[in-house]
Amino acid sequence: MTLDMRRTIDPDTYFDHNLPPTNLQWAHDEVDKFVKTQSPDQRIVLVTSGGTTVPLENNTVRFVDNFSAGTRGSSSAEQFLAMGYAVIFLYREQSLQPFNRNYSHNTRGILSYLERINGQIRVKPEWEEKMGRDLDSYQKYTQEGKLLMVNFTTLSDYLFLLREVSLLVASLGPRVMFYLAAAVSDFFIPSHSMSEHKIQSASGDLTLHMNQVPKFLRPLVKNWVPLCFIVSFKLETDPELLGPKARHALEKYGHQVVVANMLNTRKCQVWLFTKEEAQNPAIIQISKEDVDAGKDIEQDIVEELARRHQQYIANAQQQDLSA
Amino acid sequence: MTLDMRRTIDPDTYFDHNLPPTNLQWAHDEVDKFVKTQSPDQRIVLVTSGGTTVPLENNTVRFVDNFSAGTRGSSSAEQFLAMGYAVIFLYREQSLQPFNRNYSHNTRGILSYLERINGQIRVKPEWEEKMGRDLDSYQKYTQEGKLLMVNFTTLSDYLFLLREVSLLVASLGPRVMFYLAAAVSDFFIPSHSMSEHKIQSASGDLTLHMNQVPKFLRPLVKNWVPLCFIVSFKLETDPELLGPKARHALEKYGHQVVVANMLNTRKCQVWLFTKEEAQNPAIIQISKEDVDAGKDIEQDIVEELARRHQQYIANAQQQDLSA
Repeated sequence: MTLDMRRTIDPDTYFDHNLPPTNLQWAHDEVDKFVKTQSPDQRIVLVTSGGTTVPLENNTVRFVDNFSAGTRGSSSAEQFLAMGYAVIFLYREQSLQPFNRNYSHNTRGILSYLERINGQIRVKPEWEEKMGRDLDSYQKYTQEGKLLMVNFTTLSDYLFLLREVSLLVASLGPRVMFYLAAAVSDFFIPSHSMSEHKIQSASGDLTLHMNQVPKFLRPLVKNWVPLCFIVSFKLETDPELLGPKARHALEKYGHQVVVANMLNTRKCQVWLFTKEEAQNPAIIQISKEDVDAGKDIEQDIVEELARRHQQYIANAQQQDLSA
Repeated sequence: MTLDMRRTIDPDTYFDHNLPPTNLQWAHDEVDKFVKTQSPDQRIVLVTSGGTTVPLENNTVRFVDNFSAGTRGSSSAEQFLAMGYAVIFLYREQSLQPFNRNYSHNTRGILSYLERINGQIRVKPEWEEKMGRDLDSYQKYTQEGKLLMVNFTTLSDYLFLLREVSLLVASLGPRVMFYLAAAVSDFFIPSHSMSEHKIQSASGDLTLHMNQVPKFLRPLVKNWVPLCFIVSFKLETDPELLGPKARHALEKYGHQVVVANMLNTRKCQVWLFTKEEAQNPAIIQISKEDVDAGKDIEQDIVEELARRHQQYIANAQQQDLSA
């Protein structure tokens, strides 16, 4: 049976038909080392961030991309570090990075933050305090071995790396959280049915047939990391769909939390759907004034999830004792 | 993947059916001011750089993107400045910018270039010389009013801005060069046939019908800036197509130069096609060793084009005198 004869592809089959990213072995070694140097009760979180791309051609000139600057993921990673977590940050290349995020995704380049004083290249006085704070945090967490960054670009890179990290942390059980904030493509073109060369425009219009991406949350929850605390995200633009889709995901995959949000209000408001609160999700919201004043809603989201994660760990220990 | 034969859209109609970018008025005012402050014989170049995106949904979550980091454009802009040009740099947001380009598109964030010494935030000693040089150039050209940067994201943004700049510089005639290095989408989904909300994946596969983007080089050459020196680019992955397509573009649009290059060798080799050299294009190439040593082929490309542009200006003056 060929891949495109089926409506949805089996997740396992996917890995047999796509090439792993060039940094897979490096990521394996680094994550393995990172995890082994943490203390036995250290809480660990995998934060995924940014959008994945889907190439339209084997010699890639064009690709379909998902909207995501990586704001949610990079801001959340900072909050997790502040709350004592060790963070594996799996992020789209060129998307926002923790602590660096305030200086990279604007129309200013790096040089606009600098000036020459007495021959030395220094950060301009107006940026010194804020950048100094971010620099100190960044260096502290990196040097303490609490932050590991692993990058991806394509959907395929992402899926291989997600599975690799999962299998490496699975044995740590409940103290690992998965915070799956990356915007993962829903559709892709299987490598064998892709155009070899740049698609030509001379002949008129273009029709693209894309397959649905297999739902990797299922093997992740059921097989890869069945004991971990798993948080997935649901972003919609149609408010009517948000609740039903969040509930559907919980029922289908059986994981712990769905963070649901609308594209236009995602910086002010999210809902936490759980099995127990499927009809009455907890709302986390901050005011427009808070957002304008520089407050990140991720502070509140991460605080609440860390609290629930703590409870999840306690419950698991309880069960271990009574078993 | 199938290609359908259909009729392409008229360039003029395009502007009636799409919304202009929010920075159009700002760009108009800035370009107008920029051009008016240049001396009467100042050579000016519009460098376009980076890829355009094509949204798949009106509430955009997904889009088709063209591969281009903006290396060619940002490096060329630096060379044009070094050769005395005033540069309008029309670039994709988040793509590489002149002088900043060496520090932005790698996996390192800005903070990894900095350190705290005696309470001051400074560039690390190993970066001080190179960054200092780039900082000095960047500040010099900006302060002298020789570099203006205008950003776009979507295909539509790009086309509106390209037309706006064109109409503002048209009257300056031969001393303006258009260096159209941006990777512009060939296909798009007209706004009215776009999905209003995020495309749902529950129903299985996805089929996208995209229209061919109207060829804007035609009105640009014929109507917008008929007296300017126009350089377009042709990037292919199939070597058999490169020559024929470059010649075809020259015949069809009647402009001055097509810079043709292959995706895989674009940093080492380009061909300059002109009407006179349609069968024997000039080759510009540098060795792999030169590339590894940090030499940019754009230095040679821009030098050669500036020479030809000078000749073009001289010829135009000759014709003026004899007319």
